[in-house]
Amino acid sequence: MAIIEITIVPVGTASTSLSAYVAGCLKVLQKYAGITFQLTPMGTVIEGELEYLLKVVREMHEQPFLGGAERVVTTLRIDDRRNSTLTMAGKVASVERKLNQP
Amino acid sequence: MAIIEITIVPVGTASTSLSAYVAGCLKVLQKYAGITFQLTPMGTVIEGELEYLLKVVREMHEQPFLGGAERVVTTLRIDDRRNSTLTMAGKVASVERKLNQP
Amino acid sequence: MAIIEITIVPVGTASTSLSAYVAGCLKVLQKYAGITFQLTPMGTVIEGELEYLLKVVREMHEQPFLGGAERVVTTLRIDDRRNSTLTMAGKVASVERKLNQP
Amino acid sequence: MAIIEITIVPVGTASTSLSAYVAGCLKVLQKYAGITFQLTPMGTVIEGELEYLLKVVREMHEQPFLGGAERVVTTLRIDDRRNSTLTMAGKVASVERKLNQP
Repeated sequence: MAIIEITIVPVGTASTSLSAYVAGCLKVLQKYAGITFQLTPMGTVIEGELEYLLKVVREMHEQPFLGGAERVVTTLRIDDRRNSTLTMAGKVASVERKLNQP
Repeated sequence: MAIIEITIVPVGTASTSLSAYVAGCLKVLQKYAGITFQLTPMGTVIEGELEYLLKVVREMHEQPFLGGAERVVTTLRIDDRRNSTLTMAGKVASVERKLNQP
Repeated sequence: MAIIEITIVPVGTASTSLSAYVAGCLKVLQKYAGITFQLTPMGTVIEGELEYLLKVVREMHEQPFLGGAERVVTTLRIDDRRNSTLTMAGKVASVERKLNQP
Repeated sequence: MAIIEITIVPVGTASTSLSAYVAGCLKVLQKYAGITFQLTPMGTVIEGELEYLLKVVREMHEQPFLGGAERVVTTLRIDDRRNSTLTMAGKVASVERKLNQP
């Protein structure tokens, strides 16, 4: 299990608004049954088996081109831990538990 | 108004668990009255006036050293938009509206 | 043609020195005949056809685990431009030309 | 001593070419006497005392706005090591030594 954060910035789009492009990328996630994802103010976070996630993000990266963009800068951050099961909910819960300790 | 995502990874910590370090960084945010932040599975997102945010992230970056780390890799992604007011909630809402359009 | 910058940070390695891990990742590049790459102080940059590059970075990401790491945070930044040919040398030369203009 | 990589992407620029903006950011570096920097295909890397570097990157981030951009996404990656002196040349040399070992 890995967690990937993906941020996609189309370049040369004339408009400073990017939300239509981001929505297009998220529609890819609706095609993949059962994938867990979270939209944040700075990207999208998905969890699952690494090969599967890389297939998904590859398709997300393609979306802005389908919407007319000619250049796209995509940032992926992959957190891959193999000595325990990494989940988005587990990571956040672990930090919150420590925050609440006296 | 800007939005910054900050991710802090201490290096050479012996343990693969980083949640105690992340919790330490978040405690900095509790000192700054009224700062809006969101903990995500891959980082922390804060919004506000750029100079103020940079002061806050500078202090967050220092925390792992206080906790014993000797090397820290910190990633900041700054989204700074000056032709409209950028908020974390506004960015997410704008994407969700477009997602729900037929 | 795309350009990808890859940065690999193993977590929980006891030592703060990461150069042996980085060298292990670079050895992957020696297996791929003819790939153009550049080692920078903060990562490795490669250029080529996108599918090919993704195959290469997938294998680079695996190296630290083979060397004993149990958690790896890998950052990829993909610059994919489709209305002209993007090369590492071309990007740098274009900036330098503009720097030297009066 | 720290090393920072900075990548600046103006959003909504109409043109897919960004080199003029990058050149503008680099001109900031010419004002700071004696700062060591390296232009890479994916960003600019600078080394020095952390507070000084943060002052420099703050000014670099401002340049695209002076050139007409209304939204800028800036990524900083800070490598801050306190148990030995971190330099750009030293990091690359350390990896290359290990690459050349049999």
